[in-house]
Amino acid sequence: MSKLVLAYSGGLDTSYCAKYLSQDKGYEVHAVSVNTGGFSTKEIASIKEKAIQLGATTYTSIDAVQTFYDKVVKYLIFGNVLKNNTYPLSVSAERIVQAIEIVKHAKKIGAKYIAHGSTGAGNDQVRFDMIFQIIAPEIKIITPIRDNTLAREVEIEYLQKNGVDYSWEKAKYSINRGLWGTSVGGEETLTSDKNLPESAFPSQVTEQTPSDIKLTFEKGELVAIDGKTDTPVNNIIKLESIASKYGIGRDIHVGDTIIGIKGRVGFEAAAPLLIIKAHHLLEKHTLSKWQQFQKEQQGNFYGMLLHEGNYLDEVMRNIEAFLTDTQRNVSGDVLATLHPYRFELNGINSKHDLMNASFGTYGEVNKGWTANDAKGFIKILSNAGKISTHVNGSHD
Amino acid sequence: MSKLVLAYSGGLDTSYCAKYLSQDKGYEVHAVSVNTGGFSTKEIASIKEKAIQLGATTYTSIDAVQTFYDKVVKYLIFGNVLKNNTYPLSVSAERIVQAIEIVKHAKKIGAKYIAHGSTGAGNDQVRFDMIFQIIAPEIKIITPIRDNTLAREVEIEYLQKNGVDYSWEKAKYSINRGLWGTSVGGEETLTSDKNLPESAFPSQVTEQTPSDIKLTFEKGELVAIDGKTDTPVNNIIKLESIASKYGIGRDIHVGDTIIGIKGRVGFEAAAPLLIIKAHHLLEKHTLSKWQQFQKEQQGNFYGMLLHEGNYLDEVMRNIEAFLTDTQRNVSGDVLATLHPYRFELNGINSKHDLMNASFGTYGEVNKGWTANDAKGFIKILSNAGKISTHVNGSHD
Amino acid sequence: MSKLVLAYSGGLDTSYCAKYLSQDKGYEVHAVSVNTGGFSTKEIASIKEKAIQLGATTYTSIDAVQTFYDKVVKYLIFGNVLKNNTYPLSVSAERIVQAIEIVKHAKKIGAKYIAHGSTGAGNDQVRFDMIFQIIAPEIKIITPIRDNTLAREVEIEYLQKNGVDYSWEKAKYSINRGLWGTSVGGEETLTSDKNLPESAFPSQVTEQTPSDIKLTFEKGELVAIDGKTDTPVNNIIKLESIASKYGIGRDIHVGDTIIGIKGRVGFEAAAPLLIIKAHHLLEKHTLSKWQQFQKEQQGNFYGMLLHEGNYLDEVMRNIEAFLTDTQRNVSGDVLATLHPYRFELNGINSKHDLMNASFGTYGEVNKGWTANDAKGFIKILSNAGKISTHVNGSHD
Amino acid sequence: MSKLVLAYSGGLDTSYCAKYLSQDKGYEVHAVSVNTGGFSTKEIASIKEKAIQLGATTYTSIDAVQTFYDKVVKYLIFGNVLKNNTYPLSVSAERIVQAIEIVKHAKKIGAKYIAHGSTGAGNDQVRFDMIFQIIAPEIKIITPIRDNTLAREVEIEYLQKNGVDYSWEKAKYSINRGLWGTSVGGEETLTSDKNLPESAFPSQVTEQTPSDIKLTFEKGELVAIDGKTDTPVNNIIKLESIASKYGIGRDIHVGDTIIGIKGRVGFEAAAPLLIIKAHHLLEKHTLSKWQQFQKEQQGNFYGMLLHEGNYLDEVMRNIEAFLTDTQRNVSGDVLATLHPYRFELNGINSKHDLMNASFGTYGEVNKGWTANDAKGFIKILSNAGKISTHVNGSHD
Repeated sequence: MSKLVLAYSGGLDTSYCAKYLSQDKGYEVHAVSVNTGGFSTKEIASIKEKAIQLGATTYTSIDAVQTFYDKVVKYLIFGNVLKNNTYPLSVSAERIVQAIEIVKHAKKIGAKYIAHGSTGAGNDQVRFDMIFQIIAPEIKIITPIRDNTLAREVEIEYLQKNGVDYSWEKAKYSINRGLWGTSVGGEETLTSDKNLPESAFPSQVTEQTPSDIKLTFEKGELVAIDGKTDTPVNNIIKLESIASKYGIGRDIHVGDTIIGIKGRVGFEAAAPLLIIKAHHLLEKHTLSKWQQFQKEQQGNFYGMLLHEGNYLDEVMRNIEAFLTDTQRNVSGDVLATLHPYRFELNGINSKHDLMNASFGTYGEVNKGWTANDAKGFIKILSNAGKISTHVNGSHD
Repeated sequence: MSKLVLAYSGGLDTSYCAKYLSQDKGYEVHAVSVNTGGFSTKEIASIKEKAIQLGATTYTSIDAVQTFYDKVVKYLIFGNVLKNNTYPLSVSAERIVQAIEIVKHAKKIGAKYIAHGSTGAGNDQVRFDMIFQIIAPEIKIITPIRDNTLAREVEIEYLQKNGVDYSWEKAKYSINRGLWGTSVGGEETLTSDKNLPESAFPSQVTEQTPSDIKLTFEKGELVAIDGKTDTPVNNIIKLESIASKYGIGRDIHVGDTIIGIKGRVGFEAAAPLLIIKAHHLLEKHTLSKWQQFQKEQQGNFYGMLLHEGNYLDEVMRNIEAFLTDTQRNVSGDVLATLHPYRFELNGINSKHDLMNASFGTYGEVNKGWTANDAKGFIKILSNAGKISTHVNGSHD
Repeated sequence: MSKLVLAYSGGLDTSYCAKYLSQDKGYEVHAVSVNTGGFSTKEIASIKEKAIQLGATTYTSIDAVQTFYDKVVKYLIFGNVLKNNTYPLSVSAERIVQAIEIVKHAKKIGAKYIAHGSTGAGNDQVRFDMIFQIIAPEIKIITPIRDNTLAREVEIEYLQKNGVDYSWEKAKYSINRGLWGTSVGGEETLTSDKNLPESAFPSQVTEQTPSDIKLTFEKGELVAIDGKTDTPVNNIIKLESIASKYGIGRDIHVGDTIIGIKGRVGFEAAAPLLIIKAHHLLEKHTLSKWQQFQKEQQGNFYGMLLHEGNYLDEVMRNIEAFLTDTQRNVSGDVLATLHPYRFELNGINSKHDLMNASFGTYGEVNKGWTANDAKGFIKILSNAGKISTHVNGSHD
Repeated sequence: MSKLVLAYSGGLDTSYCAKYLSQDKGYEVHAVSVNTGGFSTKEIASIKEKAIQLGATTYTSIDAVQTFYDKVVKYLIFGNVLKNNTYPLSVSAERIVQAIEIVKHAKKIGAKYIAHGSTGAGNDQVRFDMIFQIIAPEIKIITPIRDNTLAREVEIEYLQKNGVDYSWEKAKYSINRGLWGTSVGGEETLTSDKNLPESAFPSQVTEQTPSDIKLTFEKGELVAIDGKTDTPVNNIIKLESIASKYGIGRDIHVGDTIIGIKGRVGFEAAAPLLIIKAHHLLEKHTLSKWQQFQKEQQGNFYGMLLHEGNYLDEVMRNIEAFLTDTQRNVSGDVLATLHPYRFELNGINSKHDLMNASFGTYGEVNKGWTANDAKGFIKILSNAGKISTHVNGSHD
């Protein structure tokens, strides 16, 4: 019997796949879920139970949270990556790591097939398939949902006919949770003009009192919160737990899908938004003008290629080398205040702060140079423009 | 007697200049203030009175609000320009237009000298001097404050000795108001770690009840608010008046000055922030992926050069041509809700919305193509990666 | 009978299509060739004769040379576009215009089908299909060669069996000629390490004596050669005729195809190389540093999207607006000397030359500023670096 | 007596400085020349003799050829850097390393002054002063030539009056030779329209017979010529000696100086041009499309900042990290043929060649995918354009 690895999430689509591929198609189904921060231990136990009931020969839960951070999240922070200046690329980034882990598992158990439950209308199919084909071109990809464009009702009916009696009542909002944010889709996100209601977001706003928080970065990584040191991954989890109580980091992303249509998705990502904005502020104090200029371009480009599933392009490794090198002095504390639905960045403390140099103060005194130096500077800065006016006249 | 045009604001520095240049230096001082949105009629009357008392031969108030919009603000909106992803370049942008108007006035009255009150430690001296030198290299620039690095006390003493008895009590916060935002400097902005207190901001937060607002754009310009049509300039003024009651658009900008030091400045810019974010959202729905990619780079670059006083570089005209051309379809309504200290964008309506096409829905159905089309697409997208893995092996 | 427009070139593949589609498939075949500079009147007559013999109901030759220039070539010159710093995009650029003209013809005669002879392994299929589908999604695309992956021998046998007795002896080198250059493919271009032999190039090197030539540009367009004014199109043709006698502009382009594999193609493009290099030199004298910086990025990007068939993306119109605006002062004479296989640019004359200003001479005298100005300039330019060293120490 | 380090080249300007500073100004002058490839052992001996005669207390020759390669030249190759697509930045690059070495020497001997012979009208003053001020702000910079804008005749007269009787007959062309090229200035380069005559170039064209050459790169560095392994520095020297006999790599650079005026300078740089073009070709075969895209932008930017003396900006280290990372697979042979005044690149051999994959051949067969895959690919690539046409109509 042919070994097949199924990317299994416990949802309707992949449950259908588990049953259909094992029973109707005769594959030896090895269900795998890759945890990039979205599943609790309890959820994993429940997913496992379902998988086996649906006919999977084995179920494996792969913990990829640290891998996810090391391979992707770290660079999204270094690059201050917000797609279209809004979205921390939560889901896009997870899919990459999930696909890589699934291939590894398939190779380990000698599977010749990988199945996933993506449709033919989204980004995930592209991210999954590209990684699978590039790393393991010898493995065949099986996608029943995409191939048969099955409606929910058909899937439910099939499962019931085959003795699977889970309740598949459609959640009003489809939620995808991970270390780097939670995406929220619903009827509003299928329109252009409606916002998600408060109730669509999984977190509850329970804090109304503003509170201060101190985020400490070391070479661009979040190493402590309020002075308590921990791993970056744990700090992200901790910060999400603190800040999501304020409803921070909610927004709607409107973007271009890889397949050329526009898509809209809500999200909440308290920790990612706080971390990226705090990290960015620290960089404004510690990096040169040209570092910031180049980082903005490289970061955006990195986000675009990641979003589009091009994670394995060598240029991504090259940009990661660039971004890592820029973080040498991005160390210090960022001071923020959390408010309901928003936060304020109050400032930073860093021994690498380029503003605190006892050198000259913006607009006030100029210790490091004289008025004549400034006049000479401006005179020569004006040379090109003067010549241009002299030769071509002035527009004004 | 030598005619001199003095850029006069009514503040201590330029008042000192007015007296010193007319009385001690013997210039025929023609005071000019260029209104880019910051002065009321009453303030202008008071400025005029002071100028004449201080020894100015004439005083002229130049209304440059519309010019400011036409030459600069319009393109800052087209380009979604926020310096360092934060600051709408309020002051930077005004200085350019003020400088141009001052030169025009100087040429009109045949003045051979232009004086301004900038110090030698800031950006404004660069913006002023560059424009002056490039457009009118034959005019000599006079800058007593910069040249003599005078302390406030010295200036006040001089004025009192010369019979000028204004109260020059230093405001705790220095405020610069204009059509495109108000900057706020104070003791906190001279540190890296302190935020401005509520009281530093000139506007008062008087609205606590969220309210909806509809911004209508036509080819990128704000042509109506809540369905009421007016000129873009009037709409900006109106929107500022509405949104500043919520304390929207306050933040601190940390940036690289033209002279190479870091500077920090607070600002409130309710209308600019709302307009830019709303305009950007409309563009996400109406522009192609590559238009957005290029606009982001061009917009940031435009902002950088404008900030640095390079407004007259021909490349600025070229980018303006680019930006204008991108706005062909950027028309429609943007729906927002104002909250205290923040706003939400709820969505857009536009006949140019590329999302509402009855074509395919993100992640849901794929009417326009089949599963096999999608699989072929991804297969070929993977070609380059496959070859690379085949030739060089895989990193993962 | 269903009307079908066939993009017909007179070669084996499209001859096969003409016969196969008219006779076996029963289409009413309307053959069209779009002349972008590659066909002589005599060749067109011969193509027509063949088309009719092969079963086409009508044959139409569309003269698109001027359109080709207006829509594409002009901007390739403005942008100094050489793909990978080598290739003037000769073929890529033609295909776009050919596809647009074919669709127009199909719409005019009410055809529901368009056929072309591209294989499934190249760029042309993408360029053709994308344009067809975007402008005329209602028209179905028919591609027998791609669909059946037919070998030459099979096509020839089929034609002979059906009474078509042309000699289809395979030329050793496949040649594609147009206004903007001639591409040359052969067994060497299928390797990575072999150059094309002299005999592969259609032009003959008949001139050994160096000669001077003067190219006159007006707002970026080539308006005269050696003082003789003519249309840009005629000047390109004339220049090609002069310079190809020297074997100028030959090279091999190695590039990334749209489908992800690397491709290699030889070309000769005497006029394009001369014009682009001359135009670029004129720009070095007449544009500001930042104009050149932005033009380089925009030009390369424009070339990339054009190469990949993305001509219809709105961003291309936006970049064209940018490029056009940059050409305001790009007027003057460029002096060159032609040698066998190479040329030298001797210099330029332009009333917009920013170097000839009586202002200061590079490295010699500094009339426009003093030593102290220069020292102040450099001192302030060093501020950021000084602060950085002060704060973080020095690497050196 | 105050210790002063003089950047000494043996030319008139720095000879004047040596005499003037030691005798008239009473400094203890320590002459230093930093060899970045331009001085032979014999020349150094002669420079030393002069320096001592002119009053220098010590003379030191610092061999910085390897440092020059390690710090700068290597990255110029990695980045294929040709300023304005022409100039290998020969002199710009040398000045940086010379300045750094001079500061090191000054610190070693405890000098409080550094002197150089630059004028106030060129780039070199900026490059020198910036490095000096940033690394050693405590050291004072002395520039008699700039400060006094001395004419040649005045300097010669002064030297003669002080018993220095060298012949200072002005060479018709001023030559600056180094590892990475030789610049040539003369009366023609002060015009816009005249080319340098053959005689202006220091090398003689002595080879007329074409010859083949094989350049072997290992991770982007030139490790062998015609199969003979040597250090990159030695290979550059060797290649220059071979190729300069053909007069290869001569051209005129027109560029924007740091002080805003246009400058024109001739150069010959046979090895740099050959190496950069060969290296670039190897990259076309071994790098992904996006690697090339990013490298082009980063390389140009790196060149711009280097040219402008911004070598110490941290962004330069970041880009070097990026460039280094891109070279992982840039290994293999490049085959070239040298001709008088030009060269041809015939092809490459590399085990990392992404073209030689037995995968699919450009335009010929498509083994890795089917016609339907290609059609699906193009269909989905067209989605965005189709939607745009559907919503906004078509321009064509």
